[in-house]
Amino acid sequence: MIFLDFKLKNDSSKYIQIADYIKERIVDGALRTGDKLPSTRQLSALLKLSRTTIQSAFQLLVDDDFIYSQPGEGYYVSDKDPILRTPSHIQWKHYFNTNGELAKNMDLIKTELPWKKNMISFTSIAPDSSYFDTDALKKSFLDIYSLESNKLLNYGYAKGYQPLIDTLKTYMHSMGIHLKDKDVLITNGFTEGLNLVCNTLTEQGDCILCENPTHHTALKIFMTHGLVPIGIPLSENGLDLQLLEAKIQEHQPKFLYLTPSYHNPTGMVISPQKRVAIINLCKKLNIPILEDGFNEELRFSDIPIRPLMSYSGYGNEVIYIGSFSKILFPGLRLGWVMADHDVIDILESFKRTMTIHTSTLDQAVLYQYMKEGYYDRYLKKVRQHYKEQYQYAVDELKKYIPYKKLYGEGGLHLFIEVQINARQLLEKCYEREVLFLPGDIFHLDDEGKNTLRLGISRVTKSEITEGFKIIGNCLEELL
Amino acid sequence: MIFLDFKLKNDSSKYIQIADYIKERIVDGALRTGDKLPSTRQLSALLKLSRTTIQSAFQLLVDDDFIYSQPGEGYYVSDKDPILRTPSHIQWKHYFNTNGELAKNMDLIKTELPWKKNMISFTSIAPDSSYFDTDALKKSFLDIYSLESNKLLNYGYAKGYQPLIDTLKTYMHSMGIHLKDKDVLITNGFTEGLNLVCNTLTEQGDCILCENPTHHTALKIFMTHGLVPIGIPLSENGLDLQLLEAKIQEHQPKFLYLTPSYHNPTGMVISPQKRVAIINLCKKLNIPILEDGFNEELRFSDIPIRPLMSYSGYGNEVIYIGSFSKILFPGLRLGWVMADHDVIDILESFKRTMTIHTSTLDQAVLYQYMKEGYYDRYLKKVRQHYKEQYQYAVDELKKYIPYKKLYGEGGLHLFIEVQINARQLLEKCYEREVLFLPGDIFHLDDEGKNTLRLGISRVTKSEITEGFKIIGNCLEELL
Repeated sequence: MIFLDFKLKNDSSKYIQIADYIKERIVDGALRTGDKLPSTRQLSALLKLSRTTIQSAFQLLVDDDFIYSQPGEGYYVSDKDPILRTPSHIQWKHYFNTNGELAKNMDLIKTELPWKKNMISFTSIAPDSSYFDTDALKKSFLDIYSLESNKLLNYGYAKGYQPLIDTLKTYMHSMGIHLKDKDVLITNGFTEGLNLVCNTLTEQGDCILCENPTHHTALKIFMTHGLVPIGIPLSENGLDLQLLEAKIQEHQPKFLYLTPSYHNPTGMVISPQKRVAIINLCKKLNIPILEDGFNEELRFSDIPIRPLMSYSGYGNEVIYIGSFSKILFPGLRLGWVMADHDVIDILESFKRTMTIHTSTLDQAVLYQYMKEGYYDRYLKKVRQHYKEQYQYAVDELKKYIPYKKLYGEGGLHLFIEVQINARQLLEKCYEREVLFLPGDIFHLDDEGKNTLRLGISRVTKSEITEGFKIIGNCLEELL
Repeated sequence: MIFLDFKLKNDSSKYIQIADYIKERIVDGALRTGDKLPSTRQLSALLKLSRTTIQSAFQLLVDDDFIYSQPGEGYYVSDKDPILRTPSHIQWKHYFNTNGELAKNMDLIKTELPWKKNMISFTSIAPDSSYFDTDALKKSFLDIYSLESNKLLNYGYAKGYQPLIDTLKTYMHSMGIHLKDKDVLITNGFTEGLNLVCNTLTEQGDCILCENPTHHTALKIFMTHGLVPIGIPLSENGLDLQLLEAKIQEHQPKFLYLTPSYHNPTGMVISPQKRVAIINLCKKLNIPILEDGFNEELRFSDIPIRPLMSYSGYGNEVIYIGSFSKILFPGLRLGWVMADHDVIDILESFKRTMTIHTSTLDQAVLYQYMKEGYYDRYLKKVRQHYKEQYQYAVDELKKYIPYKKLYGEGGLHLFIEVQINARQLLEKCYEREVLFLPGDIFHLDDEGKNTLRLGISRVTKSEITEGFKIIGNCLEELL
């Protein structure tokens, strides 16, 4: 009999569950047009629920045209065409537009091999959360919250939480950047910053010149904006200035997009001399620069290198996009854009259209965290840690993996070239429970098929050793 | 003499400040090519700073080609063409694209009269933060943080924090929504949710049918996506179904965008009967619905009204966009989209392209806050408060403002029509330090010139009385 298999769950009101149950029986045909339902009294006894609950359920079904009431007799399954008996079935996939499809096809989480339990994964370059000083963050929260909880919880400003903006200006100034006519916008990480620039300052079909390989998310953002990224091949010596000039002349790009420090994925650093030369070249040819501040703060070499933007002095051709996500607390999703105030002004308006503003609570907590000096202390600690981790990984790489080239000089990852197709290697490694990112995803023009990125920030030393041995073995077997 | 007006600030390294000072003197001409700088020893004595600091400053200037060192003699102002002496001047305004300009021109903060100190402002419909239960939020933070601080601070998932997703599913189900084949995505507020839908499911030039007037931000989002919003005029009886059908037939819109509860700006509520009829009509004509859940939770009338989506049953034609921003803690920027899982799947990929994910910390805190029952308790409290506030405002309106029509039946605002142009009225009120939003900004087709919105959520009762008296007086003077 119907209702015998009815079971209450804890997750929603009882009357709705009963109504849902009856609807499902009508839809699946167990109850048919004209069938009489048990009385509210009977059902109440059967299900051990109050009559009011049953009555509410029946009322809901009447509202939805599933049943009707015959006064003095009871409730019957409706013969009308109730909405729920012919549910709509829109083929949503037909609605997907090109940009949506592109975002989906370039979504590594959906296209690359998934991590499984017990695997050693070298895919991530997120910070190692065991190094987070969570107590300091808690203290920062409590301190700032006790000062202005109401303010933090209500609407803030699209530009950002002013004390954090001021802190970032000071920070950027300390890296040699001139603040005159410049301003800062707080964003939901680097990703939103780059989106805002594309949303406001580019036209469909514009060419963007970038390093090849480069940051996969940046490529995805450019392409979902209908922009055309053109790659400048990176040799072991990094960016070739003559090639850069030739490419600019050939393609007249809207922007030059560069990641000067521990470039993702190669780990290369553009030297100060080359930074000056790039600025001079772009000024001569009147090409603005999008500087991706990625890994700036985590550089562990002793030579101080200032951002590209600092070499532009009072000039306004560089838009700098920074992020805290690779440094600390990516869960907070905080980044910033520093640029000419005209640029920030239009980005700010677009930010208000895209996400209104970034979580004030997160901004305030981070501000307090920086103000108390926790940030500097943390940076010092992790820089040392990642330096050791990198050195360790390079040593193990040399021992166990017969690679052809190792790029770069540091970072949260190693980027290597091997003698075979990296996807072929990955397939074999995956069987032995080791995962990494094939380098082709960072490349334009079908390049980089024999390259791979090994993220080392979230693995232990023993995982590095074990994982690299497996990769090395697989590689040798395939050669 | 140069250097006498040099003053150290606390906000950046000393050597950078000195280098900056010298650069500024070179740029402004006080120091010229070939001029000899004081020795590091002299400058150290003059400025009372260590010689190391002065040497670092000079080294920075050498790096930047501002000065050069003549070994054994000292430092001279360079005769080269240093970058900073001819700073680039990109005319960024020439880069602004149509969508950027549109976002700027529709940015109310930049285009409408600004609030000044001591003004009574009826522009806001943000929640009254004095009703926030900040202690409960702090407790929620501490509880969830003690459980999983490391997890909260590292990268999360684009779809959202799973416990919050599950909570929202249960919540939506409790409002009569069928969960079969549906899924939830957490967003940075309603705004990001609507952007994601436009980003993935629309094409440039698509028509979107919406109430006229409607939510200003929604219009802005549609237009910055190159969509064409077409308005369905709202009479005092709300949406006219025949008109709706005619408009659908005429324009074949991609979506019907509706705000069924305490519609912004009119405060109207679509009745359950009409909701069923709208669903039936859209099903018949095969038009999907974007339901803006705005104010759903704050409805204080006793009649339970379920979302439009609930009337679609097992159907998949409704995309529901919800937000916590008008309920509690807009500073946290949390919203969600519930829709067919195919839709959520593509939105999720695009979300990963736009902002990676929403702050996990904020999501987890809100989850804990809901789990502990604080949310329900808070809703109960503010519903009662806003109900009283609304009734009070309506009473005062009737006493003091000779309006022509009052729309709607509740909400965080009153929407009225007067006998004159609302901007003319605003101008006069502004002189007397009262501010409101002219209704034209919510309208398409140059309609609504005599309408205005009075936000009442963030003003005191005495401000309502005083402000309405002033508006009434100004209106009478102008009539």
